[in-house]
Amino acid sequence: MALRHYTLDFNLSAAVDSASTVPDLLSILHEQEMTETVHETNGHGYLATFVGKNGRLVILRVLSHGLVTIDLQCYEGDNIAQLDNLLNALEKKLNTLLNGNIARIKRLPALVRGAEVDRYWPTADGRMIEYDIDRLVYEEDSAYQNIKILHSQQFGNILVLNGDVNLAESDLAYTQAIMGSGQEDYAGKEVLILGGGDGGILAEVVKKKPKMITMKVIDGCKMHMRKTCGNILDNLKGDCYQILVEDCVPVLKKYVKEGRMFDYVINDLTAVPISTEPEEDSTWEFLRLILDLSIKVLHPSGKYFTQGNSVNLTEALNLYEEQLGKLSCPVDFSKEVVCVPSYMELWVFYTIWKK
Amino acid sequence: MALRHYTLDFNLSAAVDSASTVPDLLSILHEQEMTETVHETNGHGYLATFVGKNGRLVILRVLSHGLVTIDLQCYEGDNIAQLDNLLNALEKKLNTLLNGNIARIKRLPALVRGAEVDRYWPTADGRMIEYDIDRLVYEEDSAYQNIKILHSQQFGNILVLNGDVNLAESDLAYTQAIMGSGQEDYAGKEVLILGGGDGGILAEVVKKKPKMITMKVIDGCKMHMRKTCGNILDNLKGDCYQILVEDCVPVLKKYVKEGRMFDYVINDLTAVPISTEPEEDSTWEFLRLILDLSIKVLHPSGKYFTQGNSVNLTEALNLYEEQLGKLSCPVDFSKEVVCVPSYMELWVFYTIWKK
Repeated sequence: MALRHYTLDFNLSAAVDSASTVPDLLSILHEQEMTETVHETNGHGYLATFVGKNGRLVILRVLSHGLVTIDLQCYEGDNIAQLDNLLNALEKKLNTLLNGNIARIKRLPALVRGAEVDRYWPTADGRMIEYDIDRLVYEEDSAYQNIKILHSQQFGNILVLNGDVNLAESDLAYTQAIMGSGQEDYAGKEVLILGGGDGGILAEVVKKKPKMITMKVIDGCKMHMRKTCGNILDNLKGDCYQILVEDCVPVLKKYVKEGRMFDYVINDLTAVPISTEPEEDSTWEFLRLILDLSIKVLHPSGKYFTQGNSVNLTEALNLYEEQLGKLSCPVDFSKEVVCVPSYMELWVFYTIWKK
Repeated sequence: MALRHYTLDFNLSAAVDSASTVPDLLSILHEQEMTETVHETNGHGYLATFVGKNGRLVILRVLSHGLVTIDLQCYEGDNIAQLDNLLNALEKKLNTLLNGNIARIKRLPALVRGAEVDRYWPTADGRMIEYDIDRLVYEEDSAYQNIKILHSQQFGNILVLNGDVNLAESDLAYTQAIMGSGQEDYAGKEVLILGGGDGGILAEVVKKKPKMITMKVIDGCKMHMRKTCGNILDNLKGDCYQILVEDCVPVLKKYVKEGRMFDYVINDLTAVPISTEPEEDSTWEFLRLILDLSIKVLHPSGKYFTQGNSVNLTEALNLYEEQLGKLSCPVDFSKEVVCVPSYMELWVFYTIWKK
């Protein structure tokens, strides 16, 4: 059974004397028949804990510089209306006691901890985000990663790889951005897709009547991301596409050797690594290797499209752009910032071409 | 000074005996020289609190049905690397102790409580969202509402009215949606804008060369939302627009009396109320009044555009649609779901026309 964790915080305009606020708050908590412990804080304000009979726990802190925090933990199945009443009573009492000295009252949505379905998936830039996820559709540990498909009321199924939101059925904006935002003519062209196991890019490029698409994937989502991939992943070979379930690197090396060229290379393998230690991190090495090989198989007038990362991760993005200056073929690039609905942060996409 | 509040939770596959896990964890916490209190829980698992010398507080719960929760509160200025090390040590130890019995480990981004700049602004459907807000640009309590302008690294300035995210400089998608998503020809038309104090709609409609726009607003954002409004709010009267700073209702009533008609009415006053007690709630009454008057001043072939609310608030949206069936002129409607970047939830927009 999960825990619900409520917080109620008062920011004060001036320092506060706990002796003037605590006794009246205690009277409310005493009505709850909880066992009280007042802790020695070595001069760091007032701290008391209250343990109820039914798994309830309240923590009251009055920090003398001007912050009052209340935590309330209870079982998920506890009486929500009763707890709301308790928090309302505490808020009302504090409002009266601290009248004129309140800079802000903050009562956040309860954090649900240890729930069967986890709704908290932080952004790439490290912010806390609660999604409207109501069920786990699918989970598997492949040799490469943990794959989850979670259902969101508003976004449809969301593919989560190693804890990172990868793509939702609502995210056509992602697929459009990594295809050049509608500015490209794919008709009759040779296209290479690296990654893209959700089938979204393949499904969209096929509509543009290219000459041939070659896609390299490791895993597919054909069962649970139908709005994204349609039926395109049901067959590994179609009129104008083939899907190779194998490692990218040897295939790219073979293409380089054969002198095979593509009009478009779409790299959907991975975001720019967040770690900014390029020399130490093997994901950066892998990124440079793929990038270098991809540019080698790119037609002189061709374009290479890829995702970057959160627009806020400027350090990682700068580092990526530095790598672009170190490839064996000189390249230029442009970037675009796009809103992908399920990401909860703006995302950078790159277009790269041979100088 | 704010508090940082870390959580570290272990979901277990099977019930757990606290005697087998707690002593080894305690050894880590004892190294921190914290004062320990073990609480009587009346059969609701193991609960201990640890108070440090520098305002640190750790709460350890081992709920016998299979959930271990750790809370760590500290001052914002505390040594973050040291705290990360402590959490790493606890996580590593629990990982070893519970080996084979772990269904999920969850360590969320720290909650910052009582910070000078508040980054937590829940969605309309009640989910916890942390924004990348780095400063408060402006704050005022008007007669009608609390107005805040907060700066986000990715969204630019965000207008927050009574605690609800209203519009950010990144949100052209909102303005486009409430203007009919590019499907309308405003050239030479009579347009009435209700609300829209941020100037975004006015700035966009003016570009379409309408005959005349009349806008009713209460407050403006001309200082801090320049990317949204440009310089359009600097003058209350332009070649093809006039801004009336007054209450909508008497003006609408006057227009009805005079028989004045508009080709487009854009109502940007407020979202559909979340409260679903329409008979009792004055915001619903206000909504019905404005809607009824607006439809009365709408040309028979005209269109009325307005925002709804979060796509997840189906009950409130259904109720709104019911109201549409009760107007003095019969109307039809369509709706569209749009991703507005700073909202962190998909948003419904309505188009309404006379039958």
